[in-house]
Amino acid sequence: MPEIHAARRERARARVAALDADAALITHLPNVRYLTGLASSNAALLIPAAGPNVLATDFRYTLAAERDAPDLELLTERQLVPAFGKLAEERGYRRLLFEAQEMTVATHEKLAATAGVELAPFGEEIEELRTVKDDAELDLLAAACAISSRALEELLPEIGSGITERQLATALERRMVDLGAEAPAFETIVASGPNGAIPHHVPGDRPLQSGDLVTIDFGARYGGYNADMTRTVSIGEPAQWQRDTYELVKLAQQAGLAAARPGAASADVDAAARDPIEAAGHGAHFKHGLGHGVGLEVHEAPMLAASSPGRLAARVPVTIEPGVYLPGRGGVRIEDVIVTGGEATSGPPGHGVLLTTTTRELLAL
Amino acid sequence: MPEIHAARRERARARVAALDADAALITHLPNVRYLTGLASSNAALLIPAAGPNVLATDFRYTLAAERDAPDLELLTERQLVPAFGKLAEERGYRRLLFEAQEMTVATHEKLAATAGVELAPFGEEIEELRTVKDDAELDLLAAACAISSRALEELLPEIGSGITERQLATALERRMVDLGAEAPAFETIVASGPNGAIPHHVPGDRPLQSGDLVTIDFGARYGGYNADMTRTVSIGEPAQWQRDTYELVKLAQQAGLAAARPGAASADVDAAARDPIEAAGHGAHFKHGLGHGVGLEVHEAPMLAASSPGRLAARVPVTIEPGVYLPGRGGVRIEDVIVTGGEATSGPPGHGVLLTTTTRELLAL
Repeated sequence: MPEIHAARRERARARVAALDADAALITHLPNVRYLTGLASSNAALLIPAAGPNVLATDFRYTLAAERDAPDLELLTERQLVPAFGKLAEERGYRRLLFEAQEMTVATHEKLAATAGVELAPFGEEIEELRTVKDDAELDLLAAACAISSRALEELLPEIGSGITERQLATALERRMVDLGAEAPAFETIVASGPNGAIPHHVPGDRPLQSGDLVTIDFGARYGGYNADMTRTVSIGEPAQWQRDTYELVKLAQQAGLAAARPGAASADVDAAARDPIEAAGHGAHFKHGLGHGVGLEVHEAPMLAASSPGRLAARVPVTIEPGVYLPGRGGVRIEDVIVTGGEATSGPPGHGVLLTTTTRELLAL
Repeated sequence: MPEIHAARRERARARVAALDADAALITHLPNVRYLTGLASSNAALLIPAAGPNVLATDFRYTLAAERDAPDLELLTERQLVPAFGKLAEERGYRRLLFEAQEMTVATHEKLAATAGVELAPFGEEIEELRTVKDDAELDLLAAACAISSRALEELLPEIGSGITERQLATALERRMVDLGAEAPAFETIVASGPNGAIPHHVPGDRPLQSGDLVTIDFGARYGGYNADMTRTVSIGEPAQWQRDTYELVKLAQQAGLAAARPGAASADVDAAARDPIEAAGHGAHFKHGLGHGVGLEVHEAPMLAASSPGRLAARVPVTIEPGVYLPGRGGVRIEDVIVTGGEATSGPPGHGVLLTTTTRELLAL
């Protein structure tokens, strides 16, 4: 899809020109991939305000770069940033933008030494462009979410007393790969019983047992795009406190999903879900933000938290994932990916498209 | 193992004192894990020249930190670096070391704003400490390598015409998890036929076919420690050029393994393997370094390349992985993990201990 990438680069170039710079050096790898199509562990892209872009990677990725970005000038180097520093100097650049949120202090020092030009932070301009997804991206993300939902649904009959957290995590990751995922998007979380109070619990050898709530946070990666979803299930019939906690989180999540519309302030979306949890006296048990963008990265802009600036645009996929974590007892989290600005396809009311479709009712397994 | 971590921190503290600083702020996550035992995606450690260490993480990892590092003062924060900046200011520090190879320019700016103290790069001091492994680390790494070797050996009967690169990669990753790996150490490379000329080929839908050389680069992670090994096999009887290329790489690898001894200059180890490849006229077809350290990271210090400074110590696990890549035709790479300074347990002569033990003879499958 070289045309798609060329169009994205043109939007980036306009930002470079607007910032009165000679060029921007893109080093954050998901940004490089977004702008060129090249997936590499070592690549960088120079976007001049005028003139052709230059993609650099090392010889391991040369063939891939020629295949994925045939329209780009290619530089094969091991040390990419100093190579671009030299190029900037040769070209007589005066002002070069760099990604301060990605570049380390040590690399910046090398760039300053080779370039001999004014270096200025580009800001998260490319991350900002990436928030609004095009059709090709939404297709890939929808496929990743569909694989994730289906994998969990197919596995439900196997979830019950006896299986350990780790066995369940492994089985779920396998199922996703069987269904076409290129890999799990991140390390699956399975947190059972009291472990559910740890939002990022690492699955261990604890067997699920009757009376547990079990939080399962997982996702598939497909074509580079990452799903991220969470369901909490009950092993055996839930106790009243478990039912109450679940219903509270479900209510909060529905409110969050409904609030995630184009034009909504990010902080207001967070508040929509947080308010009912606080009203129920559980504000202190929901300490993380409500959600985040998903795409080439599992966590990307925009963030949905009380302190988040900005408003949601249309075609922005975000997670909505409120939780209540009760130390020593357990926790509940429900998380879906919703794309702002489409038509509702399933689940609770809202103007977005829910990409993760597994039931949000409390399942007793 | 809090005692092990305390001993490691004492070595780090001595470096801080030697550099005439009040404290070092450790933000590179594998370094934090090495010094505290805590595996987290958001953690940092303050090591003062005198006085107790402070570990910071966010509430998601508080319980894990209390479990893994019960002897450490714990700070629960979301924004770790600014929190440490404030602490440094409160304590009246004059000179604070930071990890310039990890900290981004943007984070450094926040640290400078909150700390109001002189910031100086610590250098890769902790990475340097990490090169020499203690018994607990070598046990974990040996287990990771044993799982990897066994997984490939068990899978050999299934490797042959028809299976695709991706199917083989997936099967190998599963086998490793079945054998106890916590996860693959990195995304498995399976490069068949002409794809073998791409050192970091991403496995695709190409079915293996008779006449292919197939390069398989993979490893298991166990207890946080990463194996990294490569074998190249032939589908059907190899042609003469394939046999010759293989034997050349094998010879080079044996020379590299034999040269990887305590006291050897890193560049000399690289040269030991590179010389025969260059002598055979294939210098231009072996463009990467010979190897690298392995441990909590798949690629860590020391590097073994022509430009590498320094000498190998004892108890340092490194990969030895020469390759010859012939554009359009295919490639061969053979890679093992050897620990310097032990007794040879198998394979070619050398004073190291080979942790990856699958045969290095060319297999025709």
